[in-house]
Amino acid sequence: MDKIHISNKTIERLSRYLRYLTYLELDGVERVDSKELAELALVSPALLRKDLSHFGGFGKSGYGYDIVHLKKSIEKILNTDNPKNFIIIGAGNIGKALANYIYFEKLNFMLKAIFDCDSKKISEKIGKLNVKSCDDLSNYLKEYSVDIAILTTPMQAVKGLFHILVQNEVPAVWNFAPIDIKSAKNTHVINEHLSKNLLVLSYHIKNKH
Amino acid sequence: MDKIHISNKTIERLSRYLRYLTYLELDGVERVDSKELAELALVSPALLRKDLSHFGGFGKSGYGYDIVHLKKSIEKILNTDNPKNFIIIGAGNIGKALANYIYFEKLNFMLKAIFDCDSKKISEKIGKLNVKSCDDLSNYLKEYSVDIAILTTPMQAVKGLFHILVQNEVPAVWNFAPIDIKSAKNTHVINEHLSKNLLVLSYHIKNKH
Repeated sequence: MDKIHISNKTIERLSRYLRYLTYLELDGVERVDSKELAELALVSPALLRKDLSHFGGFGKSGYGYDIVHLKKSIEKILNTDNPKNFIIIGAGNIGKALANYIYFEKLNFMLKAIFDCDSKKISEKIGKLNVKSCDDLSNYLKEYSVDIAILTTPMQAVKGLFHILVQNEVPAVWNFAPIDIKSAKNTHVINEHLSKNLLVLSYHIKNKH
Repeated sequence: MDKIHISNKTIERLSRYLRYLTYLELDGVERVDSKELAELALVSPALLRKDLSHFGGFGKSGYGYDIVHLKKSIEKILNTDNPKNFIIIGAGNIGKALANYIYFEKLNFMLKAIFDCDSKKISEKIGKLNVKSCDDLSNYLKEYSVDIAILTTPMQAVKGLFHILVQNEVPAVWNFAPIDIKSAKNTHVINEHLSKNLLVLSYHIKNKH
């Protein structure tokens, strides 16, 4: 199972199935058939069955999928079956919104610390955490294990902070700053473009009229 | 030019070129060659040249691209050459972060109103705007032209609000609620999955070790 390469689009669909399975489980539902789950996730039943068959075919014809079992299998594929530690660097509006986004914890992503480079923000409280100084980032990373760092600082600060993350071999960086950074040998980067979907919508509006 | 179908991936790259062109323009630069712009946007020069040649080939060999001209051409393609009005429904953490995200205005997206369904949030001030009640949404849409509505409410509220948006023929909806909604005849929907890239990173970490 570990050898299969999954595209980002498939990962997105799997995460959508996982979300609806969680809702169904919370409603006390035990089984779901492919048609119902596909309808919730806005995909065709054929595509859903294809996605899930890659990982061993969880469904039994006429019986549907066992929700607990299917959920666990998808969590294993997405590597969310055990907790991941993440930190946020940048305690501005986006940093705060991500710190307070409850769905991350439901997916087993645990926010462990928030940093900011602006001395006025140090010790400000966000949820249960006090904002730490960027000056303490390097020492923090030497002491604690961090799987993912989220960068939401102004772009001027990104280069220096990324250097510290690479030096300390943080395996993954999710960059919200409006400047793209390249993955390093042991640090995989995803550059987030918050305005992308707004531009996609804008393009669609134009091509409709 | 209007007849070309552009994929979402191309739109993302065009928006990246646009961003760096804006930075270069602010720095007083007048021309950029494909190699330099490609390096900033983390794409190959060949791909950049291919993307731009679709729209009429702006570059002259050995001269580079004229920044002002290229910027205008991309804005026209992305339909950001004239202002678009948008509203935010849901004044929680994500709604506030999006309301304060300055890059949207730079792209000509103008935030005109913020709504919330929780009476405690009505009249709260976000930036220059007072939060309005969801009860006033329908009347607002009858009076003012809205190109894009951003939904950041809890999922229970989504269905009813989307119905109002469809009835009033709002052309585009960007949905951040963790429940997927289907486009209607005159209303194009993009469902945002904020945790998607976190899951992609998580998957990458696993497949590295």
